Amino acid sequence: MTHARFDTVGLIGKYSDPGMSDALGRVADFLTARDRRVLLDESTAAVCAGHDLEVATRAGLGEHADLIIVVGGDGTLLNAARTLADYGPLLVGVNLGRLGFLTDISPDHLEDRLEAILEGYYHVEDRFLLKASIQRDGQTISEATALNDTVIHKWEIARMIEVDTYIDGRFLNSIRADGLIVSTPTGSTAYALSGGGPILEPSLNAMTLVPICPHTLSNRPIVVGGDRHVELRVSANGQPQAQLTCDGQMNLGLAAGDRVIISKHPAPLHLLHPADHDHYEILRAKLHWGGPPLGTD
Amino acid sequence: MTHARFDTVGLIGKYSDPGMSDALGRVADFLTARDRRVLLDESTAAVCAGHDLEVATRAGLGEHADLIIVVGGDGTLLNAARTLADYGPLLVGVNLGRLGFLTDISPDHLEDRLEAILEGYYHVEDRFLLKASIQRDGQTISEATALNDTVIHKWEIARMIEVDTYIDGRFLNSIRADGLIVSTPTGSTAYALSGGGPILEPSLNAMTLVPICPHTLSNRPIVVGGDRHVELRVSANGQPQAQLTCDGQMNLGLAAGDRVIISKHPAPLHLLHPADHDHYEILRAKLHWGGPPLGTD
Amino acid sequence: MTHARFDTVGLIGKYSDPGMSDALGRVADFLTARDRRVLLDESTAAVCAGHDLEVATRAGLGEHADLIIVVGGDGTLLNAARTLADYGPLLVGVNLGRLGFLTDISPDHLEDRLEAILEGYYHVEDRFLLKASIQRDGQTISEATALNDTVIHKWEIARMIEVDTYIDGRFLNSIRADGLIVSTPTGSTAYALSGGGPILEPSLNAMTLVPICPHTLSNRPIVVGGDRHVELRVSANGQPQAQLTCDGQMNLGLAAGDRVIISKHPAPLHLLHPADHDHYEILRAKLHWGGPPLGTD
Amino acid sequence: MTHARFDTVGLIGKYSDPGMSDALGRVADFLTARDRRVLLDESTAAVCAGHDLEVATRAGLGEHADLIIVVGGDGTLLNAARTLADYGPLLVGVNLGRLGFLTDISPDHLEDRLEAILEGYYHVEDRFLLKASIQRDGQTISEATALNDTVIHKWEIARMIEVDTYIDGRFLNSIRADGLIVSTPTGSTAYALSGGGPILEPSLNAMTLVPICPHTLSNRPIVVGGDRHVELRVSANGQPQAQLTCDGQMNLGLAAGDRVIISKHPAPLHLLHPADHDHYEILRAKLHWGGPPLGTD
Repeated sequence: MTHARFDTVGLIGKYSDPGMSDALGRVADFLTARDRRVLLDESTAAVCAGHDLEVATRAGLGEHADLIIVVGGDGTLLNAARTLADYGPLLVGVNLGRLGFLTDISPDHLEDRLEAILEGYYHVEDRFLLKASIQRDGQTISEATALNDTVIHKWEIARMIEVDTYIDGRFLNSIRADGLIVSTPTGSTAYALSGGGPILEPSLNAMTLVPICPHTLSNRPIVVGGDRHVELRVSANGQPQAQLTCDGQMNLGLAAGDRVIISKHPAPLHLLHPADHDHYEILRAKLHWGGPPLGTD
Repeated sequence: MTHARFDTVGLIGKYSDPGMSDALGRVADFLTARDRRVLLDESTAAVCAGHDLEVATRAGLGEHADLIIVVGGDGTLLNAARTLADYGPLLVGVNLGRLGFLTDISPDHLEDRLEAILEGYYHVEDRFLLKASIQRDGQTISEATALNDTVIHKWEIARMIEVDTYIDGRFLNSIRADGLIVSTPTGSTAYALSGGGPILEPSLNAMTLVPICPHTLSNRPIVVGGDRHVELRVSANGQPQAQLTCDGQMNLGLAAGDRVIISKHPAPLHLLHPADHDHYEILRAKLHWGGPPLGTD
Repeated sequence: MTHARFDTVGLIGKYSDPGMSDALGRVADFLTARDRRVLLDESTAAVCAGHDLEVATRAGLGEHADLIIVVGGDGTLLNAARTLADYGPLLVGVNLGRLGFLTDISPDHLEDRLEAILEGYYHVEDRFLLKASIQRDGQTISEATALNDTVIHKWEIARMIEVDTYIDGRFLNSIRADGLIVSTPTGSTAYALSGGGPILEPSLNAMTLVPICPHTLSNRPIVVGGDRHVELRVSANGQPQAQLTCDGQMNLGLAAGDRVIISKHPAPLHLLHPADHDHYEILRAKLHWGGPPLGTD
Repeated sequence: MTHARFDTVGLIGKYSDPGMSDALGRVADFLTARDRRVLLDESTAAVCAGHDLEVATRAGLGEHADLIIVVGGDGTLLNAARTLADYGPLLVGVNLGRLGFLTDISPDHLEDRLEAILEGYYHVEDRFLLKASIQRDGQTISEATALNDTVIHKWEIARMIEVDTYIDGRFLNSIRADGLIVSTPTGSTAYALSGGGPILEPSLNAMTLVPICPHTLSNRPIVVGGDRHVELRVSANGQPQAQLTCDGQMNLGLAAGDRVIISKHPAPLHLLHPADHDHYEILRAKLHWGGPPLGTD
């Protein structure tokens, strides 16, 4: 069987979780014993006492690691994916006891899972990210990346905002709402789902536009092709008090007249899963759908 | 026919609308010609040039006016209702061309409508308001009133907040969401409807609790009795960045550990409608439900 | 402590459940040992082998039993409530291992629970039922009762039906939909919830009208007072292929021009609960809302 | 400008609409005057008095017509698309006064529109259809085609049915519901929208699975790739009383143990639109979204 050897493996941990150090230590010990070079993420290293691993910047991980193991929750993996987006990284997620949509390796059988992966029992799935840029007076004033979603939402006001949407330059609609979520298939089980959006299968080349508490009840979620350019304008009626948030983690301020351009990031994220990974099984577990039917053949 | 004579009539206008002065002038002229004493709201007077009406404070209106005519949109009437709540006022709303749920008299036939009202062709409907108080360390630190809704929502953060709800002291549930709307029947066609809440008939003695974008999909709107005491606590996990907003117009800050108590205001609002007022007709018009069936008897 | 002695107790079981006989036998033994007269429902007796209990018709139970114990699921209790509605019965539900909204006594501690109830540790909650009658050419041609809901829905057709709704004789709206659910608070956690309706607290004096897959997206659930008369007419455009179903268990055919009148049944159902019954706890368990917040005082 | 000449044009009309004959006559006259051969659909001819057009079977239209003009509503075009599916037809829809999603030419400027089309001012959009087959004991017992949707739904029962779904042979979930809609992007604005599904842009290569009134509230609409094979099984618990309906127009019976296989029809429908056709404009008009923002550049 031919497969990648993963000579250099990067490690990123959830900074705030006390259980992270232990799981990370197990991963590092396992890899070192198998003669892999291990690079520990700089920010993670800052909260991990008593290790003697080689430390690398996020950029260093992006450049040198053949595989990056993320230990934490989905939020930690979202952060890793976003900061490493330009490197088209290969990531795998280890959760700390609570199954995530993205972190699907349980700490219970960690070493067995890693062994299997090193032996080539895995598959790789591509997920696309979004790139959002804010244009002001014809200039790009800020940019951000998101694996789940880019959300335009009211900020420091109780009232609704008005958002005009254009798809590939054509006017779609003008909504009055608390905000608008632009979600990838990956993000369709996150905030977009809470907002009433559909679940998209991960490999679908599509984005969902989900209005948040729209004033007009027929403003329903809309699914457009993944290669579309979505442009959002917060209406300049009075002071637009709105912000752009990526993956619920990164905020960009918006001023009257700003244009937000959202499109697919050129480099996909490569997500590694154990060979027996089943996305539908994770959906059933996390959404309490119940098990398979009795007597299924 | 025996009915109130409305000897003293108060007038409140929408400050920001340029068409308001004209409509207000027509109302004042009509009433003066019929020997009514007219009291103009102080704040309204500040933006109305060239009138010679007697000016009164909001409190003065509450104490002396037999009827208060509000010229503007639903927002203007909400403001009037809230500020006059303690006086149990009798209000009637005149819109400025766009039908409101609360301001149902059109400016087109304004004088005819007023004439009919002075002659006793009207009916009065009671609407209850909510009273919200914030308790900190056993003390009431702030209070507010709402005719539509009291909303607890995240503030200056992109993440969800956690809200624990108690009904008459009994724990109902703990939700993670963008916020929670507590709505009167009057407010059920406003923000609560955008959030997925049901429409309540105006006279129903009930409140609706509508979670905003809840993380758990089975956290659905809940309708409880209008005499319940609803207590909300924003979970003290980290820094609770939340605010309490009444009718989308008035904001109160919240700190960790604060308790928000919401219950029915003791004094109802008395809303006067023309004799042919039909709430269902307004619903059909504003929600684009279409007309009555053909051939209806 | 003064309380009812429950000298005569009726028993009704879920006919189709093999575990029912055993649980019913335990209840009968317990009551017989405490000198209560036990009346076994005639239909239940037909599927229970080897007992020597006194058998009574449903009417007999209604007339003579001080308390009726229903062993089965919510469906069994719905059936009992409907058939006994005219007697204003006192019912208590024992489930067969799966918690119900109405059958809240678990078989695990059955005898302890019954003992406590006989000693007076219980409370009684009133639930109202609906009465539906079909009017044709000015005559009542059929009538039915429902504890959960009365549903008008398309029958043997793939197309939508058109339903006109009148509240206390006033036209509300005309919807095109798969059907319309009229639900009690008790039914608000049943079919009405699947249709997008709100959860009503059980004691609320209100009914919910929930359109099923309405063509117009702003046709949202509507909550009206429990004393309203709701009249539904299936539009006579072509052949109205519709039926009226009560509690998902009883069907009545409808012809063009029929009027369906739905109102509160005059006799309430009295539902007995163990002293520690907590409706919110059942809601949290059945809707997977999660437990109480940590550190709740 | 090079474009199709449309030498032979087929005509199909809405049988039941009295205004159809007139509009159809105008189209026929226009085409005949421009030396096109006109073929009138056999079924349409049966209800059109006093014409002397050449009549053709549906198959004849499929084989010989370069363009087929459908006069009626969306339902008429759905019927035409389904019956002509195997021919990969080029269709254009003329409505009879009420804008349709598929019939976007208004009768008001009918001749001008046709003139422009003959001159080459149009664009052609491909829409995919679904093919549904019912398998019983390893045999295909019936097949059907749909442009909007294929719906499995309860039939002649009031209770929910249980539907197990497999995507490309992998188990997705088992739902208890009134039914399940499998919709194309074209159908996303029809029944699927009433059931809570998202709006898909017409060119998206995706299908939506929308549960109808699901018992489990987290059973949300799911969007999968357009090349997936969707298999549905109605659970054999008792007598499955279910039917399969295509486009709300064609019904197929289902028995216990039947498997329904749904996949993309190999031949796409080619839908012709006038040059200025704007799908978003139709969405805004039909869903009452309001007009473009003021001051849009």
